[in-house]
Amino acid sequence: MHAFIKRSTLTTILFIAAVVTSCQEKQSPAEVKTAQNQTESITEKPLALVIHGGAGTIKRENMTEEMEAAYRAKLQEALDAGYAVLEAGGTSVEAVRSAINIMEDSPLFNAGKGAVFNSLGKHELDASIMEGQTLNAGAVAGVTKIRNPIDAAILVKDSTRHVMLSGAGAEEFVGQYGITMVETSYFDTEKRREQLHKAQGKEKVMLDHSSLLDKTPGRDAAPIDDHKYGTVGCVALDKEGNLAAGTSTGGMTNKKFGRIGDSPIIGAGNYANNLTCGVSCTGTGEFFIRTLAAHEASNLMLYKGMKVDQALEEVIRQIQELGGDGGMIALDKDGNVAWDFNTAGMYRAFRKSTGENKIEIYEKTQ
Amino acid sequence: MHAFIKRSTLTTILFIAAVVTSCQEKQSPAEVKTAQNQTESITEKPLALVIHGGAGTIKRENMTEEMEAAYRAKLQEALDAGYAVLEAGGTSVEAVRSAINIMEDSPLFNAGKGAVFNSLGKHELDASIMEGQTLNAGAVAGVTKIRNPIDAAILVKDSTRHVMLSGAGAEEFVGQYGITMVETSYFDTEKRREQLHKAQGKEKVMLDHSSLLDKTPGRDAAPIDDHKYGTVGCVALDKEGNLAAGTSTGGMTNKKFGRIGDSPIIGAGNYANNLTCGVSCTGTGEFFIRTLAAHEASNLMLYKGMKVDQALEEVIRQIQELGGDGGMIALDKDGNVAWDFNTAGMYRAFRKSTGENKIEIYEKTQ
Repeated sequence: MHAFIKRSTLTTILFIAAVVTSCQEKQSPAEVKTAQNQTESITEKPLALVIHGGAGTIKRENMTEEMEAAYRAKLQEALDAGYAVLEAGGTSVEAVRSAINIMEDSPLFNAGKGAVFNSLGKHELDASIMEGQTLNAGAVAGVTKIRNPIDAAILVKDSTRHVMLSGAGAEEFVGQYGITMVETSYFDTEKRREQLHKAQGKEKVMLDHSSLLDKTPGRDAAPIDDHKYGTVGCVALDKEGNLAAGTSTGGMTNKKFGRIGDSPIIGAGNYANNLTCGVSCTGTGEFFIRTLAAHEASNLMLYKGMKVDQALEEVIRQIQELGGDGGMIALDKDGNVAWDFNTAGMYRAFRKSTGENKIEIYEKTQ
Repeated sequence: MHAFIKRSTLTTILFIAAVVTSCQEKQSPAEVKTAQNQTESITEKPLALVIHGGAGTIKRENMTEEMEAAYRAKLQEALDAGYAVLEAGGTSVEAVRSAINIMEDSPLFNAGKGAVFNSLGKHELDASIMEGQTLNAGAVAGVTKIRNPIDAAILVKDSTRHVMLSGAGAEEFVGQYGITMVETSYFDTEKRREQLHKAQGKEKVMLDHSSLLDKTPGRDAAPIDDHKYGTVGCVALDKEGNLAAGTSTGGMTNKKFGRIGDSPIIGAGNYANNLTCGVSCTGTGEFFIRTLAAHEASNLMLYKGMKVDQALEEVIRQIQELGGDGGMIALDKDGNVAWDFNTAGMYRAFRKSTGENKIEIYEKTQ
């Protein structure tokens, strides 16, 4: 191609280049800094973080003021922890980790501390993480001693060529990396034990949050098939424009037979792709597996040109059609937040660099 | 709408209906039978079955005539077993089971008998099944004592509200249903043990078929990173027009830490949807998980209008772009067969009600 550049043109280019270089050399450090700041403000990308703490039959009439205040405070704490990472220039993966750690460490949610009991009176936890830029992903399934399963999922993503490790093998692996391990009793809470006893009494499998919110005197909590979910999740968009999504759960009360739900399955309960969106799900996991809910949302944007809120609405419709219920949160590559669910409520919140900060619990408001 | 039908029109309709009924009444049993046969031949749906026995560096120059004949015979046996089910009016799920059972019971493939060894010198097997009509699915991961893991996956689909059961819990569950259990030594083969020793000697994780086909004297098999795969899979289309896809694998040689690959993950290594296609995958599982390979192929058909062969080509391109390799087989809802891979070869075969019957092993011919 250079053969086509005439000598006179080349001279002109060289002259311009020399002038530009000369100008740059003459700039004072202060001028350079101003110019850089201008560039930054022009190209600055939005920061955004959205979280959920589970969907289910969460109704205002079953909630005390104290309980609602506790949930709101914890959701805000998780939002702030994740957002602080983004604001400090950290990655979306680190923001997701920080927000989820807060919820994992709280007994309010069915993840980490406060995880439900399986049929043996123990806890089996699952978590997953995915990066939108690289499509790198990590997950752990059926771990019993890892205090913060999302940390283990991140470790699998960063330190192995694998995506998913399970059970004692996963613990053996992450144990080599100094991740905090706990006795399984650390996860115990009295409310979850009550749920197990109720579920076992009825010899049925029930999903988490149950009865935690139903305090009607003399009422035997909610019907056992009225599933409620406390899985937690987070999607973040960092200053580099990279999305990440993470999900962490304690699974199902009275869970048997090494059941694996959607939370640790990439594309089902969790997915991120910089071309489209990041998604985290909560609900009857089997339906999110069969619809590949999180990947489906991304594909509806990529191949059908849907906006992120339209995509979630369509996926929830598909799940409902199959008989499932639950909810999803998402962030698109431009920082637009979306959430949808076909349950009575979902613990959900977001914070953005526009200054917006919103926490919702009950039915959809828009 | 009936309000718009004029009285004269209604009279005409009733008259025609009466004549038609009268004509039908006059048909002799033989005439009726002939008419039914004609209808059947007009509306008869195609039957089709496609299988794979793994993809990898399968080259003609590394194969003996005897070995090739053994593979061809076993692939034909699996095809015929599955096709016989379809021809007898059985379901696509039963056809998939029959075809995969033949390959699971053969030491030629890395599934069931002949499964590779994990790092502890044991076997951990995975399998999954999905029905295209209902999107019902079942899977088992990390089972060690189930002779035919595909049977366990079908049992999970049919007899639980779950999709995925894992480890000892999965075995406890299927053990209640009289599925054949074996000692883990049943899966042992000398060739797989040699592969384990080689892999452990090099302290690297390697994927199955390796060195089985490389017999060059004095040559230390294929390079250890030159992955080869022996997962098996099958997609079938039955007379009701229902698709089903199944995948069964012994995982990775020297596998550690409870790694779960793509084979038991719905949407990654296996997927079926009557709207589009059924798909079974084999390869570096992590890349098939990150791309949701099987679900992606279906979505490319559903949302981008691609044909089944175009969809597989695009997914293999995505996998290659991420650095992965492997292969896929698929059947669309009309019985069109597709396969694609970016490895040197893939054991693959199909049989259709058109009379076509094809077995291929090496590089793509078209």
